[in-house]
Amino acid sequence: MPSPWITDERAALVTDLYQLTMLQAYRREGLDADATFDLFVRRLPPSRSYLVACGLDDTLRYLEAVRFTDDALDYLGTLGLFDAAFLDGLRGFRFTGTVRAVPEGTVVFANEPILEVTAPIAEAQLVETFLLNQVTFQTAIASKAARVVRAARGRPVAEFGMRRAHGTDAALKGARATWIAGCASTSDVEAGRVYGIPVSGTMAHSYIEAHDGEADAFRAFAALYPETVLLVDTYDTLRGVERVIALARELGDAFAVRALRLDSGDLAALAKAARRMLDEAGLTGVGLFASSSLDEYAITELIEAGAPIDGFGVGTRLATSSDAPALDSVYKLAAYAGQPRMKLAEGKTTLPGAKQVWRRTGPDGRFSGDVIGTADEALEGTPLLVEVMRDGRRTDAGRDDLAAIRARAADQLARLPERLHALEPAEPPYPVEVSARLGALRDEVQAALRRQHALPGR
Amino acid sequence: MPSPWITDERAALVTDLYQLTMLQAYRREGLDADATFDLFVRRLPPSRSYLVACGLDDTLRYLEAVRFTDDALDYLGTLGLFDAAFLDGLRGFRFTGTVRAVPEGTVVFANEPILEVTAPIAEAQLVETFLLNQVTFQTAIASKAARVVRAARGRPVAEFGMRRAHGTDAALKGARATWIAGCASTSDVEAGRVYGIPVSGTMAHSYIEAHDGEADAFRAFAALYPETVLLVDTYDTLRGVERVIALARELGDAFAVRALRLDSGDLAALAKAARRMLDEAGLTGVGLFASSSLDEYAITELIEAGAPIDGFGVGTRLATSSDAPALDSVYKLAAYAGQPRMKLAEGKTTLPGAKQVWRRTGPDGRFSGDVIGTADEALEGTPLLVEVMRDGRRTDAGRDDLAAIRARAADQLARLPERLHALEPAEPPYPVEVSARLGALRDEVQAALRRQHALPGR
Repeated sequence: MPSPWITDERAALVTDLYQLTMLQAYRREGLDADATFDLFVRRLPPSRSYLVACGLDDTLRYLEAVRFTDDALDYLGTLGLFDAAFLDGLRGFRFTGTVRAVPEGTVVFANEPILEVTAPIAEAQLVETFLLNQVTFQTAIASKAARVVRAARGRPVAEFGMRRAHGTDAALKGARATWIAGCASTSDVEAGRVYGIPVSGTMAHSYIEAHDGEADAFRAFAALYPETVLLVDTYDTLRGVERVIALARELGDAFAVRALRLDSGDLAALAKAARRMLDEAGLTGVGLFASSSLDEYAITELIEAGAPIDGFGVGTRLATSSDAPALDSVYKLAAYAGQPRMKLAEGKTTLPGAKQVWRRTGPDGRFSGDVIGTADEALEGTPLLVEVMRDGRRTDAGRDDLAAIRARAADQLARLPERLHALEPAEPPYPVEVSARLGALRDEVQAALRRQHALPGR
Repeated sequence: MPSPWITDERAALVTDLYQLTMLQAYRREGLDADATFDLFVRRLPPSRSYLVACGLDDTLRYLEAVRFTDDALDYLGTLGLFDAAFLDGLRGFRFTGTVRAVPEGTVVFANEPILEVTAPIAEAQLVETFLLNQVTFQTAIASKAARVVRAARGRPVAEFGMRRAHGTDAALKGARATWIAGCASTSDVEAGRVYGIPVSGTMAHSYIEAHDGEADAFRAFAALYPETVLLVDTYDTLRGVERVIALARELGDAFAVRALRLDSGDLAALAKAARRMLDEAGLTGVGLFASSSLDEYAITELIEAGAPIDGFGVGTRLATSSDAPALDSVYKLAAYAGQPRMKLAEGKTTLPGAKQVWRRTGPDGRFSGDVIGTADEALEGTPLLVEVMRDGRRTDAGRDDLAAIRARAADQLARLPERLHALEPAEPPYPVEVSARLGALRDEVQAALRRQHALPGR
């Protein structure tokens, strides 16, 4: 069996079968004009008031690299669906199109194109699945992370979710997404290597248990890593705190433990008790770090309960965006051969033509509303979509570095209306309108389609 | 920047930082005895009455392959945490341990070891994160898929979730997990190539929209793929059905379209209307295939509403296990240097020592209850854990083929008590007990720890 690892040169088959059957049909029918597709989210999850766009870099890397290998073509040949000439044609497949996108780290809302692909229809169609796959989950994780970081009110959030992320790709790119949205570090060592994100970690219960006594484990770990974080709840949290205090007395000036980690029980009550014990022992510089099924709701409760916690380790609920593990993301044909296109399916109608999103800023420096317009009109505010790839190659705007992306996200989040940062859905939601020109185009295309399909006007 | 794709030879850094800091501490302290770790799920999600174990094959492949490359060691050297001798020692890192596991496709419950690793503590510790990462999400997806397949009551379920799965690893291995649990096919072409799973797909709205008329699109696609499934809801579902009927009249005996796909609106009502129209036109052999935010709940509603639907395409909610995107999976030290170990943390106590799970079958051939015992006792029923790796190499039992795993899952699911297949939590839940011997061991270790830590007995 071939290795189940995916790499760039094998990513052409990271697609839905129908993309390939449609490609053969397009070729057979001579449909090879340029198509424009929008990638956007139809509706925000009920628990999200905004999204943080993420995933563009992996998307562009794929578009530059995607090829059909011999292995891939051999496999497709076994399916009995594709003729030899078509498969041979795939050998030369390259993505040669143009991509406009909102830069990673930008805040986006429902119906706003996150990226727009214009290319010969076969190219634009094939890449749909990979683009959706990467942008959807990365945006979901970045959006969740922004909420968690906000809830921590300036206290650092360490991302610990790798073990419950959905596979290695999700762990790696999820770590990047959480860093973009403001997390302080990740436990994922490979993410540290690949992206240069700060890596952090404490110790596991197994380390404590491998020793005959908890005090021995603390002493040994602190000897090797003086500024470490000690995990105190393996047997009993407050006994653990007592042992750290004893170790501090034993080590005197050599004691440099940075914090204690609480990982079970009533975290608010334990943090208060531990803080009191540490302070009474003169260990005011030793912080408290909490973990255990945390998310923005649990963190808010802890802080509002006055828990003296200095940092949070957040894993599963962040790495899986557990309350909204998917976004209603789609990649829809907006134009073909220069003609605007749309779909009328009930509850799933789309906006035709190439677009631009304009964002206005109020006198307080906060975003006050967006308008989705046609690509060729100029509206008030700042346009969000920029050209990140032309003729299959990245532009300078498509080469954002990670630090710039993280800074952008911080700026964008600071400029959101305050009500969008509430845990509950913002009321009213952020205003996103359709411009008069795009609205007229939509109505016109829709009316023509209704006439063509003999449907009642609505 | 290095490519963000993970491959076997780079998987050593797919771990949490603390594994490596603990490794260095173990080495420094001379802690190198064998450790036994259990991987299990502490509690089932509220919406799950059982789990389908999945992910072992990727786990064993990783254990055979994991190495530290020069790149990895260079990176670790930059962190200022590890000394040169330790990093040099990692160069020779190999997993040389033993793994016992429940075969993939086996039904498991809370607290039952899904796999157990025994190896020198550094080896057993390092691999924790990767093992949890793979087993957790694959088991979550397989368990969700079993529910969805069951809800379809014999109608085929096509897995369409790749675009919203969390990255490429999740899409690929998730497709495998859904196939194991009984899905009929996947849309994921790479999963077809790697695993030999049947691939399937229909057509996208964009294909229809790229044509000037829907009828033209249907005609062209059916000419190339006579036994295809036509998507009829792009503009208006029942107009779409009319056009298929017209095409059937036009093509006569050459018409071989297998089914129509409904993807929006009131699926039950549309299916009934479409069925009536097709039947009246004599097209009784043309089936109806439905998609659009389906899961086990929506499918049950459709079937109970009498919707004449012959197959389902299920995507997002399956590929993300959206109502339970993570399992409360852990990897806990059970023994070190021959001594049983456990943790007492509130609400998170573990069972000490190497274990076996025994499953009893009632007179009706259905599973009637499990007992978790010590590894060295013989109890009634069938033992679930088998040795799948010895001295770092797979045993024959660790080389299950996919067809055998899928057949096992089908057999296991058929042997579950019927109440476990309800959409709502089974009442009473499946009985899982701790054997008298394991219970006595737990009490003994716990009492010793309580004495050691001067905690009140409970």
